[in-house]
Amino acid sequence: MAQRACIIAVGNEVVHGFIVNTNTAWLARELGELGFDVAYHLSVNDREAELTPRIKAALAEGLLVVTTGGIGPTVDDNTRQAVAGALGVPLKLDHDALAKLSERYAAVGRKFPQGSERQCARPEGSTFIANAFGTATCFLARNGDGGIAVLPGVPRELKGIWAEELRAAIIHEFGLHERFFSRELRVFGIPESDLDQRVKALLQSEQAEGAILVDDAVMRLRWRVSATEQADADKVLQPILAAARTELGDLVFAEGNVELETCTVQLLADKGLKVACAESCTGGMIAHLLTNVPGSSDVLVESAVTYSNAAKVRRLGVKQATLDAHGAVSRETAVEMAAGIKRESGADLCVAVTGIAGPGGGTDNKPVGTVWLAAAMGDEVRAWHLRVPGERELVKWRTARTALNTLRLAALHGKLPEKIAHWVTPP
Amino acid sequence: MAQRACIIAVGNEVVHGFIVNTNTAWLARELGELGFDVAYHLSVNDREAELTPRIKAALAEGLLVVTTGGIGPTVDDNTRQAVAGALGVPLKLDHDALAKLSERYAAVGRKFPQGSERQCARPEGSTFIANAFGTATCFLARNGDGGIAVLPGVPRELKGIWAEELRAAIIHEFGLHERFFSRELRVFGIPESDLDQRVKALLQSEQAEGAILVDDAVMRLRWRVSATEQADADKVLQPILAAARTELGDLVFAEGNVELETCTVQLLADKGLKVACAESCTGGMIAHLLTNVPGSSDVLVESAVTYSNAAKVRRLGVKQATLDAHGAVSRETAVEMAAGIKRESGADLCVAVTGIAGPGGGTDNKPVGTVWLAAAMGDEVRAWHLRVPGERELVKWRTARTALNTLRLAALHGKLPEKIAHWVTPP
Repeated sequence: MAQRACIIAVGNEVVHGFIVNTNTAWLARELGELGFDVAYHLSVNDREAELTPRIKAALAEGLLVVTTGGIGPTVDDNTRQAVAGALGVPLKLDHDALAKLSERYAAVGRKFPQGSERQCARPEGSTFIANAFGTATCFLARNGDGGIAVLPGVPRELKGIWAEELRAAIIHEFGLHERFFSRELRVFGIPESDLDQRVKALLQSEQAEGAILVDDAVMRLRWRVSATEQADADKVLQPILAAARTELGDLVFAEGNVELETCTVQLLADKGLKVACAESCTGGMIAHLLTNVPGSSDVLVESAVTYSNAAKVRRLGVKQATLDAHGAVSRETAVEMAAGIKRESGADLCVAVTGIAGPGGGTDNKPVGTVWLAAAMGDEVRAWHLRVPGERELVKWRTARTALNTLRLAALHGKLPEKIAHWVTPP
Repeated sequence: MAQRACIIAVGNEVVHGFIVNTNTAWLARELGELGFDVAYHLSVNDREAELTPRIKAALAEGLLVVTTGGIGPTVDDNTRQAVAGALGVPLKLDHDALAKLSERYAAVGRKFPQGSERQCARPEGSTFIANAFGTATCFLARNGDGGIAVLPGVPRELKGIWAEELRAAIIHEFGLHERFFSRELRVFGIPESDLDQRVKALLQSEQAEGAILVDDAVMRLRWRVSATEQADADKVLQPILAAARTELGDLVFAEGNVELETCTVQLLADKGLKVACAESCTGGMIAHLLTNVPGSSDVLVESAVTYSNAAKVRRLGVKQATLDAHGAVSRETAVEMAAGIKRESGADLCVAVTGIAGPGGGTDNKPVGTVWLAAAMGDEVRAWHLRVPGERELVKWRTARTALNTLRLAALHGKLPEKIAHWVTPP
């Protein structure tokens, strides 16, 4: 049976709901990858009397307990004391850690803050875990079949210490030979129910545990196996991933932790394609997503966020007659926007969107979520009519991702794609 | 002493870390407002054997337990059974709820799904809580000093049921007379330590509990008091808020749950000002934030996301000689961008940004985070040099918010502001 674990987040701000705790989900995934069965997460306030019994109860169940937070220099940072109390051992000052911390302050010419030596104490018999990301001393202690690891609450520190020190220390301490290895494909452009149908047999593989994880329109297909080494895991996972790719084709945009915008920018850069956008209803979000990716300056020439009709005419050369005859949300306007931004920018590949994000502006004929998306490449211009479900921010989000996917598919195939997403419908 | 409460989230996806649980923080704040002292949050998997003892333990402590998730129609939805087990009463089918649910399916011409009657069961003696947002029956049951309320896990459903039904039922059941009332101010433009210094005396008020809650550069100053009615609370809170506003002046951008972009768009609309942006390092994010606000089409003419130098010249009339002599990230370029977008768009008020978002592009002279921001209004153009700390996405985020604040302050005072944020430094 798998070793069980739990995560305890310490801090009043979390318990009172003023901070959304994202550390725990991250740690749970990491512990899962190491093969731990995560039994529960707990968030408690920093009072020692609340904390000690809860840690004691988890240790009594034989769990590996990972705590986050409450190990800073102030008097309400009580996690160390609570852990020592739960383990039934005294807290001892780590003189090496204190010396190093004093040096760090001296090196930047700052006075050692009063009370900061508190941060260098750890329970007798615990293993020191180095922290290159902050001032608090971390540690790992065994207790029967289980044990306890203590981390700070700042996400950047916690993730750094885990990756560089704690993960390896846990593998060593718990003698983990068999671990979980997982690989995932990322998919965009079909509904979850269709994806489920198409990969049902692969998800029910007897050799690996498969799952569909949904982040709005971007879905992750994940399989995991228990193995001692990556190579053994890959023998099982490789054929499953290959079969899924064969089944899904270019609906798969990446393997692993890669965003749609990252994959799109990389592909455009690889192909040496310059892009430009003309955005109305997405209001700059396509460019915002593209420019989140380092290196996007090699790819993006410009985006004309032409929110007003006047700007569409002036910046893109959309004809006033077209706007008058067909409206701003029409095939004709989208096509003129795409052709206009291509002409103006000189880019190789362009995408244009115009639609009704809501809450106002919808009509019976063109309800909220009606979007025209057009793309231009070489001499060709193509347009798609979308019915995007959801409210304002979702309409922007989903439309922007559909635009990214259009750029990705055009770069991949060297020509404008036919299918770009499942919310394309006849007008 | 305040009645204590805890929140139990049920579901494997949460425990394994594949979903970040945002419900709990929301519920904790709501329970806090009602005057409950939230003792802890727990996330557990949906196995009845795991769930029942944990609910039982919470009830034994006399807590009000609020559960989320695990009340759907499938066989792994075990929350109802676990709650009934923990309360030591049988689960009974609610025939009224079943009749209503059957009618809902009939009304849309769909067959009643097999197994869905499971969703209409609740523990004997519990109070029915109507759910207008989904198919699962919710309930509230008393147990000694405490009790248990059962909600679905879908955020939209949970929040709707809480606001429309459960909140009032809890107030009634627990005879709550005294509740917490809170009010908050939102602040942008100074470091947290400065804010703390300036409102220290007000935060330490003996009549109300004050706190600074930080969401990156946007800070919330919150005070709460225990009272029976809003009017009584306001007698205490009103003078504190007024004193804070006097101390902070236009650093306060809103009261309550209002984003900087929302407040900016509303102010621009109230003053009848049209705006346009020229964005380089923010890559469309200023326009994206503005267009997240419904009604922004009355305010925003366009944003020229001129990521390449060629686009800066072509779209904004920046001189090639200026780029050659001073570089794209310079006072001179920022000023020409602001003047250019104003001339091209005809807007009343314009903002332009050019900077180094990183990770590449930094030099000793102009490190990552160097940004020039310029604004134009009437005949005036003004520029600020910023040193924005953080990595790529943070630089974009903080620069975009500084641009919004510049628009807000210009709209507020009818002229370009002097101070726009604390990361303005001499070049």
